[in-house]
Amino acid sequence: MKMFGLLACCLCLDSSVAQAAQAPLRINGQRLVQHLEALSEFGKNPQGGVSRVAYTDADRAGRQYVMGLMRAAGLDVSVDTAGNLVGARAGTDPALKPIVIGSHIDSVPEGGNYDGDVGSLGAIEVAQTLNENHVSSRRPLQVIIFENEEGIMLGSSAITRGADAARLNSVSQSGKSVRDGIRFLGGDPDRLTEAKRLPGSVAAYIELHIEQGAVLEQQHVQIGVVEGIVGILDCEVSVEGFANHAGTTPRNQRHDALLAAARFVDKLNQMVTSVPGQQVGTVGWIKAQPGAYNVIPGKVTLGMELRDLDARKIQDLFERIRTAADEIGRVNGTSFHFSPHALSAPALTDKHLQTLIEQSARGLGLSMQHMPSGAGHDAQEMANLGPIGMIFIPSVGGISHSPRELSRPGDIENGANVLLETVLGLDRMPEAN
Amino acid sequence: MKMFGLLACCLCLDSSVAQAAQAPLRINGQRLVQHLEALSEFGKNPQGGVSRVAYTDADRAGRQYVMGLMRAAGLDVSVDTAGNLVGARAGTDPALKPIVIGSHIDSVPEGGNYDGDVGSLGAIEVAQTLNENHVSSRRPLQVIIFENEEGIMLGSSAITRGADAARLNSVSQSGKSVRDGIRFLGGDPDRLTEAKRLPGSVAAYIELHIEQGAVLEQQHVQIGVVEGIVGILDCEVSVEGFANHAGTTPRNQRHDALLAAARFVDKLNQMVTSVPGQQVGTVGWIKAQPGAYNVIPGKVTLGMELRDLDARKIQDLFERIRTAADEIGRVNGTSFHFSPHALSAPALTDKHLQTLIEQSARGLGLSMQHMPSGAGHDAQEMANLGPIGMIFIPSVGGISHSPRELSRPGDIENGANVLLETVLGLDRMPEAN
Repeated sequence: MKMFGLLACCLCLDSSVAQAAQAPLRINGQRLVQHLEALSEFGKNPQGGVSRVAYTDADRAGRQYVMGLMRAAGLDVSVDTAGNLVGARAGTDPALKPIVIGSHIDSVPEGGNYDGDVGSLGAIEVAQTLNENHVSSRRPLQVIIFENEEGIMLGSSAITRGADAARLNSVSQSGKSVRDGIRFLGGDPDRLTEAKRLPGSVAAYIELHIEQGAVLEQQHVQIGVVEGIVGILDCEVSVEGFANHAGTTPRNQRHDALLAAARFVDKLNQMVTSVPGQQVGTVGWIKAQPGAYNVIPGKVTLGMELRDLDARKIQDLFERIRTAADEIGRVNGTSFHFSPHALSAPALTDKHLQTLIEQSARGLGLSMQHMPSGAGHDAQEMANLGPIGMIFIPSVGGISHSPRELSRPGDIENGANVLLETVLGLDRMPEAN
Repeated sequence: MKMFGLLACCLCLDSSVAQAAQAPLRINGQRLVQHLEALSEFGKNPQGGVSRVAYTDADRAGRQYVMGLMRAAGLDVSVDTAGNLVGARAGTDPALKPIVIGSHIDSVPEGGNYDGDVGSLGAIEVAQTLNENHVSSRRPLQVIIFENEEGIMLGSSAITRGADAARLNSVSQSGKSVRDGIRFLGGDPDRLTEAKRLPGSVAAYIELHIEQGAVLEQQHVQIGVVEGIVGILDCEVSVEGFANHAGTTPRNQRHDALLAAARFVDKLNQMVTSVPGQQVGTVGWIKAQPGAYNVIPGKVTLGMELRDLDARKIQDLFERIRTAADEIGRVNGTSFHFSPHALSAPALTDKHLQTLIEQSARGLGLSMQHMPSGAGHDAQEMANLGPIGMIFIPSVGGISHSPRELSRPGDIENGANVLLETVLGLDRMPEAN
C-alpha cells in the first residue's frame, strides 16, 4: 500500500481502466496457489510430491498444462528449438530489450511441488495480472519456462551458450538422451542454435524461487534478496575393480570396487567438512555392478558434487579429492576415473536489481534480507545475457528436493507480488535501449 | 585305466554289449564341451559370459535346450511343481533309493559359462554314457537341474524343505516374483508341496562343480574332494536418512543415508577381516534413493553377506555388525534396519562319499585333495534328504561369477569321469534299501 507500488501502476495503466487506479496492482494469490495444486497432479507420487523428471511423460503433460495457463494469461506462446516454453507480451516501445521472468517445472525424482513451480507459475501470474488489468509495460515481457533445469540446466544453457554433441548425447535421468528428450518436448536439437540469444539481448532476467534452505524461516524473514548463486561441479566417478565370487575369493585377493567407493564417499565428506567455509559436497547416486549378494562388485559408478561461491575453492578441493581417491584405490587394487561435467560457474546478481527487489519488498511491507543461493538456478545461465535478480521465499523446515518440500500460500503470494513490483520498477527505469 | 573303474563297468554291463567290456567306461569329453558351448549361447553377453538370471527368457530358453539333451541321453524328463528339471533313469532294482546327480544352469548377472553348467551337463553326460553303452545300474538314477540356485537356491530348497509365502512373494533379480518365476518355468507354485521329498528318500546326492576359487590351480591339483559347504547369511540392510537439497542443506543438518551406508560398508569389511579364520563378508549391491547429483540420498538399501563353515561364528559376527551400524547411524541421524534371510546352514559332506570320490580320482590317475567349499551349492540343501558328495575341478585364476570364469576342457572331462566312477562305485555298495 506504499506509494511506490501505486505509482508503478498509475504510470502504465491503459486509459480505459484509469478509473480503477486507486487500488494497487496485486497478483491473485488464491489463483496462483490453485494453479500450483493443479500442476502438482502431473507426476504426482503416492507418498506426496512429484517425480516430474525432465523428458518424461509427466514432464510433457505438465508443460501442456502450463502452456494453457500462459495462453490464458494473454501470452503469445511458442516452444523454442531447445524445448523451452516462451510466452511473449509486447511492450509499448518495441525498440527496448525485453524483461525476462520465469523458472522451470521439471523436478528431481521424488521431488516437491514448489521448486521451480512457484517461479514458473508466479511469472505467469504476473503476466496474467498485467493482462487482466490492462497494464502495458514499455518493455516487452517474456515468460520462459526452461526445460531440464534439474538435470543439467539444459534449456537455459542452450539459450545462453548452446549445447555441444556430448551434452546432447548424454543420457538424462528419464532414460532418454538429451537429444531425444528435446525432441520429445517439441524442440529440435538439430536447430538448437536458433534458440541461442546474444549477450546484452535482454534488459534483465528476474527469477522468483523458493529458498530450499532454512535461513529465511529460522530468521522469520519473508523475502530473500539473492546476492549470488554458488558454482557447482558435478562429476561422474567410476571405480574399476574385479567382479568375483563372494564366497570363494579370499579376502586378500579381492578388488572390491564397492569397498573402495565406500571409502571414497566417506573421505569426500571428511575433506569437504575439514575446510573452513560454507562449501558442501555430496554423493547423490551410486550404482554397483553386477549387483548381487554373491558377487564382489567389479565396477561402481557414482555421482559427486561440490558447491561454493568461489570457483577456485571448488577446483582446489576437487583436485585434492582426486588425489585421495588414488590412494584409496591403491589399497585394494582398484582404480578411480573422474569425468567432471563443465563447472557451473558462480554467478553474482546485479546490484541495481537487488536494490529494486529490496524496495519492492519494503513497499509491500515485507521483511527481507540479502543472502546467497546454495542451489543452482537458470538465473546463473541467464547471467551470460544480462543482469540477473532473484527473489527467495521461505521453505518450511528448509526442506527441498523432497515430497515434504513446502512454501506457505502467503509467502508464495508475497513472492509473486515482489516479482510484479520489481518488473514494474525495472520497466520505469531509464535505459539506453 | 585302473581295475577299479574297469570293474565298475564290467559288473553292470548289459549282456548285449559284453563284448565291449574290455575298454573302461568313459564319458565323451568333446561332446560335453560342445554342449557347454551350445548352452553358453543362451543369455550370452557381448563382453563374454552369460546373464542367464533365473526366470528370464534366457533362463527358460536354456532349459529348453537342456531338456533336449536330457531326452537324448535317454532320460525320462519332467518338470516338478517347483520348476526343477528331473530326468529319471530306471534301475534294475526298483526297491532301491535313487542316486541323484545334477546342478543348475541359471547364472548371476554377467556371470560365466561354467558355474552350475559343468555339473548340469556333466550329469547328463554321465547318463548319456551309461545309456549309449547300455550300462544298467541297480539303483535308479536321477539327474536334477535345479532352478534359481544363484538367487535363493529355490529349486533345491523347495524339494528339501518347501517354500513359504514370503519366499514365493519375494522379487527375484529377474524382476518377477519367485511365484511368477516358477510358473514362468512351467512349475506350479500353488502345488509346490508335491515337489517336496522326504528325508532319507535318496541314496545320495553327488554334484560336480567348478571350484570358483584358486586353490586347486595354485596347488596344481586336478580334483577337489569337498569336505563341507560354508553357511551363508544374506541380509538386506536399509538405511533411513532424509532426502534434501544437496546445495542448500548445511553440512550439520544432513541426514545422508549414503554417507552412513558407505561407513557401514567399510566397517563391515574391517570387522570381518579383524577376526581370525577364513570367513568372508561382502556388500554386493547397493541402491540410493532418490538418486541424483543434487539430492542428498534419503534412503539406501544394500545387500550384505557373511560366509563361514561355522554357523555360530556367522551369527556372532552379524550381531556385532548390527551394533556397529547403530553407532554409525547415531553420528548423522540415520537409522539402520536389517532384514536377514534365513541362514543357509553349513553342510558337511558324507565321509564314505568323500572316500568314493577320492578312490575314483585315484582310479583315473588324477591328483586330488580334500578342501572346503567357500561357495553355496544345491548340495547343501540336498543334505537334508541324505548323504551328499561334491567333486571340484579347477577354475582358472580362481575367477567365477564373471565373464572371465574358465575351466579347461581336460579338467571338465576329468570331473565328469570322476562323477561317473563315483556313481558306479556307489551303485555297487551294499545297502539297506
